[in-house]
Amino acid sequence: MTDSSQPTFDADPRGSMRKISGLDFLNGLMDGSLPPPPFAATTRIIPLEAEEGRVVFEGTPSCDFCNPMGVVHGGWVATLLDTGMACAVHSALKAGEAFTTLSLNITYARPVTEATGPLRCEAAVLHTGGRIAGAEGRIYDKSGNLIAHGSEICVVIRTGRGP
Amino acid sequence: MTDSSQPTFDADPRGSMRKISGLDFLNGLMDGSLPPPPFAATTRIIPLEAEEGRVVFEGTPSCDFCNPMGVVHGGWVATLLDTGMACAVHSALKAGEAFTTLSLNITYARPVTEATGPLRCEAAVLHTGGRIAGAEGRIYDKSGNLIAHGSEICVVIRTGRGP
Amino acid sequence: MTDSSQPTFDADPRGSMRKISGLDFLNGLMDGSLPPPPFAATTRIIPLEAEEGRVVFEGTPSCDFCNPMGVVHGGWVATLLDTGMACAVHSALKAGEAFTTLSLNITYARPVTEATGPLRCEAAVLHTGGRIAGAEGRIYDKSGNLIAHGSEICVVIRTGRGP
Amino acid sequence: MTDSSQPTFDADPRGSMRKISGLDFLNGLMDGSLPPPPFAATTRIIPLEAEEGRVVFEGTPSCDFCNPMGVVHGGWVATLLDTGMACAVHSALKAGEAFTTLSLNITYARPVTEATGPLRCEAAVLHTGGRIAGAEGRIYDKSGNLIAHGSEICVVIRTGRGP
Repeated sequence: MTDSSQPTFDADPRGSMRKISGLDFLNGLMDGSLPPPPFAATTRIIPLEAEEGRVVFEGTPSCDFCNPMGVVHGGWVATLLDTGMACAVHSALKAGEAFTTLSLNITYARPVTEATGPLRCEAAVLHTGGRIAGAEGRIYDKSGNLIAHGSEICVVIRTGRGP
Repeated sequence: MTDSSQPTFDADPRGSMRKISGLDFLNGLMDGSLPPPPFAATTRIIPLEAEEGRVVFEGTPSCDFCNPMGVVHGGWVATLLDTGMACAVHSALKAGEAFTTLSLNITYARPVTEATGPLRCEAAVLHTGGRIAGAEGRIYDKSGNLIAHGSEICVVIRTGRGP
Repeated sequence: MTDSSQPTFDADPRGSMRKISGLDFLNGLMDGSLPPPPFAATTRIIPLEAEEGRVVFEGTPSCDFCNPMGVVHGGWVATLLDTGMACAVHSALKAGEAFTTLSLNITYARPVTEATGPLRCEAAVLHTGGRIAGAEGRIYDKSGNLIAHGSEICVVIRTGRGP
Repeated sequence: MTDSSQPTFDADPRGSMRKISGLDFLNGLMDGSLPPPPFAATTRIIPLEAEEGRVVFEGTPSCDFCNPMGVVHGGWVATLLDTGMACAVHSALKAGEAFTTLSLNITYARPVTEATGPLRCEAAVLHTGGRIAGAEGRIYDKSGNLIAHGSEICVVIRTGRGP
């Protein structure tokens, strides 16, 4: 039996996601009225704050992603940064709009281990022009040290499928 | 009780890893004489081929990494590409040398879903100069379509801790 | 008095450029039937070869671009690489299509001085999907040493203004 | 006859440049006590402000760098951004230290023509760790529109050749 108080993942998530604005979607994730996406549990990445064009995510590093050196995989750090930057773009989209990520650049400033503890990813849209949006993001540890920074380009898709 | 036929993860993996060349390390992962790193099971990424300066990895996409659109997170694709390019650099290192990743660029050509099936990541070192090594990589699906491509810069650390 | 045997730069170059395919345009530059763009003389960058989706350019470094260290500015090297990658995209466009560059990544492997002599930039399109095209490029010196490598993303514009 | 009041370019610029801190070097360029580097006249790029770890440059676009579409070459924009980010790194170096650029990423937000007028490039160091320094930069037009943004990684060389 399903607990009906628990939101479940939409069978047609793309269509459903587009019915509301990006900011409403992110707010829905944060207040629990929308279910977390599958990757959130796997990667321990969750949204903390969202406004139009700017978001904050938290990622908690786990040795599930450790490389042979006992260091958390750079791909996990890229996943956190990508999540922040893509959702910054999403937060600026209206109902009926969607996006896809075109490119990601990341520079690593410090290694991450499980002992590093929760990381804070701050990301913001820098420009949106027609069908293209660009964002930047930074990841900090709890002491405010820069862990990584980068940029991302997304393609915005406007199909008029809004409500 | 531990199955003694199964290699276990080294308590001092960094030191242990440096005792052998990068190519011997990758060959050890492939023939099972060395244990897989923790991220391998989480991300379903494994090495297929390795020679000095060039590797092939396989990654099998799973909806454990799906985003709200039902698409595999770009961060997982970045993890596969980063794994390939970093290990291409590693494959060119001698015993006593280590490396750390400095930057990663990725361009996404096609979205990945669980239905895409196993992906092949081919990566190679392009140049090594003193303490810096650069690599490129490409990811293809089983039909040979380009999924993503990118480049990476690593810092090579030579501490003379070799055997 | 104008020498009528010398092609002059079109007052409406964008429209004119679109009337022919990218490959015809590059071939016109190489056989002298089309005038070189203004940047060619300033930067000493010229096309050597073009086929659909692949080009070779030559750039001759000059101390007009030297930095205070007597090294040719990385921006000049980026200009050569960008020229190659953008023209690789252009070479794959039909009449009526245009493009604009969205992003450029470059990794520098070796410094360039005036004494380095002419450089060879080889660039190719890796993928074109709808309105996006991705290219990669490499720059070599006359001894075949890798000087720089990178990637670029372009937006393709199809306005139906072809002949 | 040489005008002895005009500083001339050092025959051993690399050694000379290292005798003073990066900030002193940039201040010397701005107050005219040091000669401008050769690329400055070719590209019309000059420093406006410098403090430790942060600089502002101005670049005035010219059709000497126009492509066949009458648009200023993306390579010129990359040269301006690279100048800013590299000098931001330089501004944080002590006497006896030098640097070399390892990689450059740039995202283009708006095209530049000669009519765009002078551009402002703001750049800052984000992190310096051992031998690596990372910087970010943005280019704005006179109305404050974002023209381009990017990041750069430099290798810092400490040879103890200071005064």
